[in-house]
This record gives sequence, structure tokens and C-alpha cells, in this order.
Amino acid sequence: VNHLFAENNKLPHRQGDYSREEVQLANRNSGIALELLTHDVTPPGMHYLLNHFDIPVLDEATWTLPITGLVNTPLSLPLHRLQQFPKFLKTVTMECAGNGRAGFEHRKPSMPWQVEAVGTAAWTGARLMDVLEEAGVQEKAVEVVFTGADRGFDAGVDHHFARSLSREQAHDQDVLLAYEMNDQPLPIQHGAPLRVIVPGWFGMGNVKWLTSIEAIDRPFEGHQQAANYHYKTTPDDPGIPVTHLRVKSLMAPPGVPDWYTRRRFVEPGQVRLTGRAWSGNGVPVEKVEVGIDGKWHPTQIRRHESRYAWSQWNFEWEAEPGEHLLSCCATDAEGNMQPDAPVWDQSGFGNNSIHTLQVTVGNRKSEIANA
Amino acid sequence: VNHLFAENNKLPHRQGDYSREEVQLANRNSGIALELLTHDVTPPGMHYLLNHFDIPVLDEATWTLPITGLVNTPLSLPLHRLQQFPKFLKTVTMECAGNGRAGFEHRKPSMPWQVEAVGTAAWTGARLMDVLEEAGVQEKAVEVVFTGADRGFDAGVDHHFARSLSREQAHDQDVLLAYEMNDQPLPIQHGAPLRVIVPGWFGMGNVKWLTSIEAIDRPFEGHQQAANYHYKTTPDDPGIPVTHLRVKSLMAPPGVPDWYTRRRFVEPGQVRLTGRAWSGNGVPVEKVEVGIDGKWHPTQIRRHESRYAWSQWNFEWEAEPGEHLLSCCATDAEGNMQPDAPVWDQSGFGNNSIHTLQVTVGNRKSEIANA
Repeated sequence: VNHLFAENNKLPHRQGDYSREEVQLANRNSGIALELLTHDVTPPGMHYLLNHFDIPVLDEATWTLPITGLVNTPLSLPLHRLQQFPKFLKTVTMECAGNGRAGFEHRKPSMPWQVEAVGTAAWTGARLMDVLEEAGVQEKAVEVVFTGADRGFDAGVDHHFARSLSREQAHDQDVLLAYEMNDQPLPIQHGAPLRVIVPGWFGMGNVKWLTSIEAIDRPFEGHQQAANYHYKTTPDDPGIPVTHLRVKSLMAPPGVPDWYTRRRFVEPGQVRLTGRAWSGNGVPVEKVEVGIDGKWHPTQIRRHESRYAWSQWNFEWEAEPGEHLLSCCATDAEGNMQPDAPVWDQSGFGNNSIHTLQVTVGNRKSEIANA
Repeated sequence: VNHLFAENNKLPHRQGDYSREEVQLANRNSGIALELLTHDVTPPGMHYLLNHFDIPVLDEATWTLPITGLVNTPLSLPLHRLQQFPKFLKTVTMECAGNGRAGFEHRKPSMPWQVEAVGTAAWTGARLMDVLEEAGVQEKAVEVVFTGADRGFDAGVDHHFARSLSREQAHDQDVLLAYEMNDQPLPIQHGAPLRVIVPGWFGMGNVKWLTSIEAIDRPFEGHQQAANYHYKTTPDDPGIPVTHLRVKSLMAPPGVPDWYTRRRFVEPGQVRLTGRAWSGNGVPVEKVEVGIDGKWHPTQIRRHESRYAWSQWNFEWEAEPGEHLLSCCATDAEGNMQPDAPVWDQSGFGNNSIHTLQVTVGNRKSEIANA
């Protein structure tokens, strides 16, 4: 029974069109509908969702969270105990590290996100640091490991999804153990009964369906930490760990779509262009520019009260009949700016190239007559 | 500005691999995660979703539903008035007519569903017949037309999504005007504030974001009624309207998946195989058989109390090491049975061919050692 499971890091990279397996993943996972970028908080059910393995169903009545390893007081906390810690709410924009992978012509066989693997939610829970303080993480602990109930194979390795944070990162006051999303109990597909929320990071750090937290004395070697989620330019590149979000912006498509192509039809006159922009690690977005047929214009930015949530940008466009290319490009307070084209990554991670839409401006009735 | 919008009924059919536009639709729309077939009612946020155009955001405070045309008393009902009608709950299995389209090698450019465009929800609302009775539909009315707020182009035609029912169908006691889904206000992506629920029909009849109901004296000629949603064997075939669900069954995949291929790994020994089966128009499922490497076995069926909701089937499998093909096949009380292979349809509608999974049974540790 050799090679029964696809070792997808050994599969040839895809070129051009998409495979049955890529479409299977796209049907199974789900992205935001871009028109809902008008909402500060993504409506329930429309937040992007990327689950590596099957969604596990845990019994909250018997579930407890062990906190073990290099701690002074090993704990095993049922949900009601976690709910007794001081309760914090953080509004956080989360994005999949693989968002934009489909933009690479020659790409790793994996989830073919175009631009839609993003969402913003209000997460409520205990602060991880408060829970860790109760256990007392020892000085010799180097990392804290979070393990989920979701299990399967990736690149031939059978494992539970697990990720680590450094001891310092784990004691960041903004990291949550969340049991609510948008003031409702955590939905099953988002990690019920408990998940980690690491604001400002890509999605993979926000481990779902937590089954244990362990303090260890060495860097964690789990598959999703050591092998996956590294920026690599070649297969042999040891790579750089994927951590924080990169500066990015998206536009809510104006007008109405064509069903199949999603090309947009807009009536002439004043059109409000709007969208969202964010960066990593809580760094604010400094400016967003809108490109109209290659000419760039400043936009108005409305910041969210949470530094981890996306900003809204708005631009009043005088739409003239004809074909137009609309783009948006964000720059953050540290001077990071979106690139024009995807920056090559072996696994399709971190593609924050500018978002462009093709728009036809015209009078609808004549349009139909000519079609 | 000719031909600015893809007329997707004129685009060449796709062969083999999938286009960027198909993947765009797959990222935007979402299917059930098959492991959640264990649930009688699909968990909120995991019901399949197919929206032709942008999701409109309607203001419930000012929204009213006009009921016009050939009625004795034209009405305009705000939501609170609709909520004063007797309240009914129906648990309904809904499936997209295009579910299985990706199974056609040579297929219409459209949403590339594999098997996952299905879900079951408890819908609550007023009975359409009660509301129509208050308006008094006249004898000369032939059809009742439901129009949604969602608008866009399809095959070059600019329109709001709209569908009709015959006068008789519209007075069926099981058709609802639903304002709740699973005891919560209707989510925005499922048609808030009000949608039609036509139990036993494919999804297209369940018009979302209702903006009007109109009784008319002739067959409705709207694009989604007269041009789209017909079974056709050739492009010139006038076709047969798509209406009721076809008999079908799916299996919750046993064991754990490989991330990319979704092939399954199962440990040897007794394994409970489980899944769901349904048919159209409230016809009960009579039997479900499970195929193990081509040999068929009867399963135990547990019917849902609602005749419009899927049945659960279960089978105890003694899994022996090696490669296996698992299938399921349902037959309904009218003798309709799933075909082995997709029955050709020009638009990829109504593919109810049997669901097959590839499964490896083996000892996990040796598996990894050999990988």
C-alpha cells in the first residue's frame, strides 16, 4: 500500500486550467462574496472558511482543554471555566495565507483562492495570557503548541492540525481563546467549542477545535508549522515562516454582474467605489489609491476602531461610457505597498498583488439591444 | 459596445479541466461539507448557497411585498404583517439543479458543482396560499410570478431573478413565504427578509429577496423560467422544465481525508457507513443500497418526520485492508432509481448518478512508514 495518498508537495505544479481536485476544494471551502465588503463585520455564514480536514463535531458537555507541558499547574478546563475568565471582544480581519494562489499560473496543487479568502468577525473569549498565567508557563518553555481535533493526511503525513506560538507571542494581550463569533456561540465550522484567535496573522495560526495547549522546550516540529506555511522560492528553499498578514485592499464590485464571467455593468454618472484595506500585525493602512485605467487617485479612508480590523475606503467616480479597468492599492504605515503582480511563492502564499476589475459603463437598454 | 458580456449559452462547452471563471464561481458559492451529512439539519452557514447575482441588502424597515396583477385586493405587506399570518415550519432538503454539473466532461460554462450543492434547513413563514387568499387570485390568472431584488446579466439578458408557479402550484399548502431559517431571522445570503420555499423542487424555484408577487394571465416568459432551467439534450432542443428533485443519495466519507485529493483513509474493522437520500415532490425514498467494490447491500433507513427532508441511511461495514470503492444508490417509492453514470444534459442539470468514494483501509502506522 505504497503511495496511497497523494503527496501533494510532490505533485507537479498546475499550469493554466484547474484540476478536479482544486475545484473540489473550492466547492468545499468558501470565500466572501465581494459585494459584502460593504459591511464592517462580515455577515454570519459569509466569512471565508478553509478547513484542511473534516469538520469535527465535539461534545461540549464532555470537552475539556488540557494545558500541559512546562507549566507549574497543569489544568484541564471545561468551557464554563474558560467563560469565567475576563471576557474580551476583538474585531479581527482574517485572511487565508493561500488567498490569491489561483493568480499563479504555475501553482501548487491546493485550494485555488482568487481574492475572496478574507472576512472580519467579532470574536469573544478569554485572553490566552490569562489562561496561561493560571497554569504558570515555566521559564524554560520556548513555544506553546495548539492542537486541534481535525485530523488527516497532508503530503503523506498523518497528523492533527497543530500550530505553535513563541512563549512571548502566546503572552500577547490580544491573543484570544474564542468561544463566540459575532455574539453567537462559535459555529461548528469555525472551531466550536474553542479556537485560538491571533489578531494580525494569517488564518493558519488561529487553530480551531482546540483539544490541547502544551508548553514545550524546543521549536515545534509539527507538519503545519515546520513543513507547511513557509514562503519558498524553490522546492529546496528552507523558507521563511508565514506569520503576519501583508498589506492588501479589495474593491466591492460596482454595478451588476454577468452571471458567468462576473464582469460588471455600470450606468454612467457618479458611482461610489468602496472597498476594504488591511495590513499585518495591527499596522494601520496609511493610504489606499484607486486606479482608473492606470491613473491613480487618492481615496478617503475610514478606520475601524479595532486596529486589527480592515479600514473602509471610498472614492467618487464619474463613470464615462466605455470599457474601464478599476484597481485599488494600499500602503501601510510602515511603507509596505501592494505589488503590481504576484510575487512568486512556491506554495502560493502571501499573494497581495493589486485587485483589478473589468467594468463596462453604458446605457443598459442600448447594451441589451447590441448584445 | 457589442458583446461586452459573455453570452454563456454561446460559449464553447468546457472539456476536462476547469476555467478561471468556473473556479471563481466555486469560490463565491459554497457547498455542504460532506462529513456534515451526519446532521439531520445542516448546521447554519453550511447549507449550500448558489446566488446568480450580487447579494442585495434590503432595508427591512422600509421593505414591503406588493401582491399585484390579477387579484381582487392588491396588497403591499410589510414584514410584520406577513408575520401575523399563521406560522408554519417545514424542514426541507434543497438541492441546486446544477449539482453534479462538474461530472460532465463536456459541460456548460457555469457553476462546477461536484456533489455538494445540497442542504436541509427548517424554514418558517407564512403559507403562500394564505397570503394569496387574502389578495384573492382571480380565476383568469394562469401563473404567479415571484421576483427577487437580485439583478444582473445571464446570456446577454439583463434581468432580476424571477420564477413562476402555476396557479395550482402556488396554492399548494406546503409552499411558504419564509422569514426564518433554523429558528433565526433569514440570513442575508439566503434571501432576507423574505424568500419562497417550494418543498420538493430544485433550488431555482425558491426565489430569494422577494420584491413582488404578481398573478398573470399567461405563462411567464422571464429568462430564468423560459430560457434557463430546462433539460435539453441539444442546444436546439426546446427542452423540459426543471421542477422536482430527482432521487439521489450521498455518503458521509468515512475515516480521515488526504487534504488535497480528499481520498479517505480508514482503519480496519467495523465501520459505520452513513449518509442521506431524498427524492422529489415529497415522494419517500424506498431503499438505499451500498456498493462495496461493486457488490450491493441493503441499508437501514431512518425517515425524517418531514416528507420533504432527506432520510438517513446506515450500513455496518467490516472494512478489510486494501483499496475499496464505496457507492450508494437510492430508489424512491415510485420506482425511480439513480443511474450509474450521468444522464447527458446540455446545461448540466439533474445529474443524480451514484456517489462513489475511493477508500484505503490500512493500519495507519505502516501506512506512514510506506509513504
